[in-house]
Amino acid sequence: MVNAFNPANAENLDAGLRALLARRQKVLGPSYKLFYEEPVHLVRAEGVYMFDAQGNRYLDVYNNVPSVGHCHPHVVEAITKQVATLNTHTRYLHELILTYAEKLIGTFPPELSNVMFTCTGSETSDLALRVARNFTGATGIIVTETAYHGITSAVSEISPSLGEHVPLGQHVRTVPAPDSLRGEGADVGETFARNVQAAIDDLKRHGVKVAALIVDTIFSSDGVYADPAGFLAPAVDAIRRAGGVFIADEVQPGFGRTGDAMWGFQRHGVVPDLVIMGKPMGNGLPIAGMIAKPEVLQDFALRARYFNTFGGNPVCCAAGLAVLEVMENEQLMQNAKSVGSYMKQGLAELARQYTSIGQVRGAGFFIGVDLVKDQESHEPDPDFAIRLVNGLRKRFILIGASGPEGHVLKIRPPLPFSRQNAEHFLSAMEDALREESARQ
Amino acid sequence: MVNAFNPANAENLDAGLRALLARRQKVLGPSYKLFYEEPVHLVRAEGVYMFDAQGNRYLDVYNNVPSVGHCHPHVVEAITKQVATLNTHTRYLHELILTYAEKLIGTFPPELSNVMFTCTGSETSDLALRVARNFTGATGIIVTETAYHGITSAVSEISPSLGEHVPLGQHVRTVPAPDSLRGEGADVGETFARNVQAAIDDLKRHGVKVAALIVDTIFSSDGVYADPAGFLAPAVDAIRRAGGVFIADEVQPGFGRTGDAMWGFQRHGVVPDLVIMGKPMGNGLPIAGMIAKPEVLQDFALRARYFNTFGGNPVCCAAGLAVLEVMENEQLMQNAKSVGSYMKQGLAELARQYTSIGQVRGAGFFIGVDLVKDQESHEPDPDFAIRLVNGLRKRFILIGASGPEGHVLKIRPPLPFSRQNAEHFLSAMEDALREESARQ
Repeated sequence: MVNAFNPANAENLDAGLRALLARRQKVLGPSYKLFYEEPVHLVRAEGVYMFDAQGNRYLDVYNNVPSVGHCHPHVVEAITKQVATLNTHTRYLHELILTYAEKLIGTFPPELSNVMFTCTGSETSDLALRVARNFTGATGIIVTETAYHGITSAVSEISPSLGEHVPLGQHVRTVPAPDSLRGEGADVGETFARNVQAAIDDLKRHGVKVAALIVDTIFSSDGVYADPAGFLAPAVDAIRRAGGVFIADEVQPGFGRTGDAMWGFQRHGVVPDLVIMGKPMGNGLPIAGMIAKPEVLQDFALRARYFNTFGGNPVCCAAGLAVLEVMENEQLMQNAKSVGSYMKQGLAELARQYTSIGQVRGAGFFIGVDLVKDQESHEPDPDFAIRLVNGLRKRFILIGASGPEGHVLKIRPPLPFSRQNAEHFLSAMEDALREESARQ
Repeated sequence: MVNAFNPANAENLDAGLRALLARRQKVLGPSYKLFYEEPVHLVRAEGVYMFDAQGNRYLDVYNNVPSVGHCHPHVVEAITKQVATLNTHTRYLHELILTYAEKLIGTFPPELSNVMFTCTGSETSDLALRVARNFTGATGIIVTETAYHGITSAVSEISPSLGEHVPLGQHVRTVPAPDSLRGEGADVGETFARNVQAAIDDLKRHGVKVAALIVDTIFSSDGVYADPAGFLAPAVDAIRRAGGVFIADEVQPGFGRTGDAMWGFQRHGVVPDLVIMGKPMGNGLPIAGMIAKPEVLQDFALRARYFNTFGGNPVCCAAGLAVLEVMENEQLMQNAKSVGSYMKQGLAELARQYTSIGQVRGAGFFIGVDLVKDQESHEPDPDFAIRLVNGLRKRFILIGASGPEGHVLKIRPPLPFSRQNAEHFLSAMEDALREESARQ
């Protein structure tokens, strides 16, 4: 994992942190990793700020789950009210799920008119695979080289970012991310489509019919690739020509984060067959879902029994509805666009001063800063990325890193992040860049 | 699905229900099924009661998710407080997850000392499959004939209760449920173990090494099989002799429901290698988890990256901790034992009067009433089961049905169900039995 705390360094931490680490290790075991050279022990959060046990305030430029802001009062109130009234499942009639589903579907193109609720992005990716395979009668799946779509057995088989110890399925092919910095070919969209076509052909040569192309429409784990908007269209054409469907993974770019549109695929002028959403949907409550073209879903829905105990429960739907209301009331997508663009410009200015920055990419509040060893080879510099991430943490700013080698800073604040917050971040970023560059 | 509303009968319903049905069909699509000939439109719930839009009060003898009672004030308060304070993920240090994990693990035998949090039983079953296969280096899985363990791609392959349109995996074998009414062999445990051994041998003959035996320790979807306590032990021995692990699915029997013990496997005097839990864990919030022997989990946890965004978040952990506190404070396991036993006796008395009852089975607050066409053949009578379920619904009592043909009444109230509630239920049950028997 990028930016993981190394437990071997626990002795450098204070006694309180060491005690918590020992308790974690004992009951949670080794799957549970922590961020940062010095882990952060959090006790409360509000808006774009998080607070540790010593009362230090951190500017959150990382967490996309509490998307409308940590502990947003409107969302808290909606959850509080519903949890005291009724929390049950979808085999009884309940109106709130319908009100929410209608409002959510209203943010999509009209072809996408059915929703199925689950609890996590992983469950949703898994469901989308089942539906796509049922609809196409095929099994082949195409993903990008550092894709992450979740952690069920089936989904981990299409998530190369999980690393060499989690094998890809034999019916899975990967294509290079649409990398405009290091990729070959001048036209990103044409190159990406050509690679998808080659993957289709290779599957076919192995006797595997292709069921779906699935991409995160901002390519988060691949290192953030947003531009030029529209580049996805030729690849979507290619997958459909081969009889497959296009699945848009909107877990990261969805819910207005890109600033340009509610959903990342809309920036590319395409309409997916299935859409996966999750993380920010309930501002932290476990709710996720799949939006589908009815004709793609129909046969699966009629024949395969699918019931998700907690999926679409009234409390999670209340949270989901409140999130949409806050986004409207506070014009958060517009904020992501304007402040995100201001932030990206500020970072681009830093890129002109610091040769360690190879490229600044992204849309709205999803920005990637690609760190390189030099401006000629563009060789990734993951060590420098980690030093910056930890340098910012010392300055009470939370960000992360991503990309195949962890060399891309992942800048992804809650949506109410203001212009002042952006100035605060940019100034700390410049400071950290200066200090870490001097140590090079 | 057992007890599913048939949309073709919508015209018999009042205009309000018809309007809700039309909205559901439009946005949710055909996967979403409703219970009962006349669906129930719920608006609030409290303790063991649920209320519909007309203000009718229903006695809840079905819902095991709101296990400590609908909208329990202590759980509501814990959620309300935490959701306004902090909701984040496990890559920062947070104390509540540790306090909860320690208390939860304290309810297990000492060998089972690691927990991994997820959001749903399905996610947990899927994780347990990954861990079991990683530990054993094998793929074969043995389940019961009407098992249900969840709805991911991998888990639906081991869930025969999903029906013929969801194929079992080629590495999956089923064994008959430990049926003391219709099964062959006087000794349930010996018969069950013999069947498990035959499945192991058959897998081997097909070149498949067995990874795990996984059972719901009260065999809910198979029709509720609880006795004689201890019958699981020989099958667990058999799977271990073959190099496989034993996975206890405690989603249904866990959290004190059987009255005899916190976990269903404890009634059988066995210690599983992995334990799956879910539904009642957060009284309705999506939280689930896997408890593991560290040596079984270790290699997977060290090598395969596994992170669950919402799993173990502070709000869901607060709900989980509050559930354990309420169970202690209100002695709910003891209540399940005493009132459950009273209820089972009352049902056994009805069985002496009504030949349509073939057997009353179960432990604590998980009781199955097996309905038969006659006392000689014990041929299942699913039609009569559905009539009773709907007859009780007309009497404002909510129960369900289960088993391979849906002929077993599923009686599974929230744990604070009192002796008076049991009397209320038994009296309505007698009434419904009398009326429906007269119509036979």
